[in-house]
Amino acid sequence: MNLTLQPLIDQVRSGDPRALARAISVVENRSPGWSDLLKALFEHTGHARILGLTGSPGAGKSTLVDQLARHYRKQNRTLGIIAVDPTSPYTGGAILGDRIRMQDHFADSGIYIRSMATRGSLGGLARATADVTTVLDASGRDLVLIETVGVGQDEVDIVRLADITIVILVPGMGDDVQTIKAGIMEIADIFVINKSDREGAERVEREIRALQSLALRSDHWTPPIVKTIASEGTGVEELAAAVSSYEEYLRKENLAAKRSIENWQQRLIEMLRDSLLENVQQQLHGDLPRYATEIAERKRDPYTLVEEIVGKLGKN
Amino acid sequence: MNLTLQPLIDQVRSGDPRALARAISVVENRSPGWSDLLKALFEHTGHARILGLTGSPGAGKSTLVDQLARHYRKQNRTLGIIAVDPTSPYTGGAILGDRIRMQDHFADSGIYIRSMATRGSLGGLARATADVTTVLDASGRDLVLIETVGVGQDEVDIVRLADITIVILVPGMGDDVQTIKAGIMEIADIFVINKSDREGAERVEREIRALQSLALRSDHWTPPIVKTIASEGTGVEELAAAVSSYEEYLRKENLAAKRSIENWQQRLIEMLRDSLLENVQQQLHGDLPRYATEIAERKRDPYTLVEEIVGKLGKN
Repeated sequence: MNLTLQPLIDQVRSGDPRALARAISVVENRSPGWSDLLKALFEHTGHARILGLTGSPGAGKSTLVDQLARHYRKQNRTLGIIAVDPTSPYTGGAILGDRIRMQDHFADSGIYIRSMATRGSLGGLARATADVTTVLDASGRDLVLIETVGVGQDEVDIVRLADITIVILVPGMGDDVQTIKAGIMEIADIFVINKSDREGAERVEREIRALQSLALRSDHWTPPIVKTIASEGTGVEELAAAVSSYEEYLRKENLAAKRSIENWQQRLIEMLRDSLLENVQQQLHGDLPRYATEIAERKRDPYTLVEEIVGKLGKN
Repeated sequence: MNLTLQPLIDQVRSGDPRALARAISVVENRSPGWSDLLKALFEHTGHARILGLTGSPGAGKSTLVDQLARHYRKQNRTLGIIAVDPTSPYTGGAILGDRIRMQDHFADSGIYIRSMATRGSLGGLARATADVTTVLDASGRDLVLIETVGVGQDEVDIVRLADITIVILVPGMGDDVQTIKAGIMEIADIFVINKSDREGAERVEREIRALQSLALRSDHWTPPIVKTIASEGTGVEELAAAVSSYEEYLRKENLAAKRSIENWQQRLIEMLRDSLLENVQQQLHGDLPRYATEIAERKRDPYTLVEEIVGKLGKN
């Protein structure tokens, strides 16, 4: 255990927002001590309820998250919000959105908002989001809301962190249900039809019902469909009630632990994958460009090469 | 080398469509011999020009691919088409699309079409697409067209296989440029504005130009913008001409080899990642659920565990 980290750990656990920001930066940037910090914080996690919110671009996720945050703050519950924005770095989506929302909330230390933009590839964002969630959970937040665009495998991996997954659809965006990644529909615990005053809301509802009739969940929960108009706050109470119902269901059926174990099994796989890759990249350091050149020139086949490298690592 | 595979290898190389279908199934399903088959076929690859086409859902990718295929068939060039469909298995998008398109082309052995739906997670689809591309390339096809929805990291990984990447946008779908994954805009060699008779085509063009002015490519190529109406065949000749121009540019500037080496470096990393993960999953087999349980109960921290497992593997 890294002793110089202890003050930071204590400050994070006391909920100090500045310590929180510093700890998150350490973890996000893999600054010295990041791994020891996560190890030390981990035993203090498990208190926060983690909600994942996902949906098409333009579905009104941010507005809904803001409304939910207001609702929970009225109940005096503290929140961490992670807004994952995989859109273009050019448009500065993450930063801009963050700034606008901070204006509303920055005086309230009960809400901590962090935006994360896409970085690199190979699942880095899902892992970074998970690590930031660990920090927020250890800081004693009652709720962590993770918001992301539900279009790719990254996003499936991200919302898989959550205890409760909310999928947000919106009428009149063409084939709504179909433009969402398949895996996302399947992990929804609650559906929201936002902007539900628009034409086509009934059709979206029918589509969700049709999907549900095709695939029964192993836990026998039927995800409710909540209609909202987030910009006016309509339906937000109902959404919070749906969240409570699902929590109650998990408790009653003793499913919470089962779900958490399943989530951790998946996350362990992702962590191992990332860590193994880092490890092999370090070991191969200078060789990768040479190998790639030989393959591009058809002097070597990549399938045999990969077998050889992995075989060598596996021996001990 | 697996001797029983030799007849299949010979048949694939002769271009026999039924052998092709069988070889692709072996590779996709990881049936016995899949690895030997890829190793044997690899040395016969490198002939095919690989085009990646990607864009928002509803951008008209399939129609454009069909039109391009018609164009190339008139020049007597043979094609393989891989349609990657990450939408819901419920809607059967891939299968349906396949069937409709097969009706048009099934009498022409110069076009081989294969649809691939999302399967599992962890980058499996990118790898499967790459392997199928290897088979099609080895079969002597002049062109391989890979078509995919450009919304997630999976899709960035998929189009990264291509020699030439075409990004298809369409006017009037809201914030067109922004709903495409950042990484996709950056790897476009050619932009297509499809359905260009719709209102808003000029705006999409301006947005692309604005993005281009922000980020100059290291190879100094300025991706051209081709306007098409794929449903009427308008602009398809121009698109094929843009492809030829870029090919010519790559040749003239000696960039083709450089790009191929970069692609292979990235692909090697992905192959290693997948293969290492498979390896560790086999070795951990029974232990993963137990570890996940201990973590969920906070009896163990995942960060230390992953370090231990990876550390043990690394030693030899």
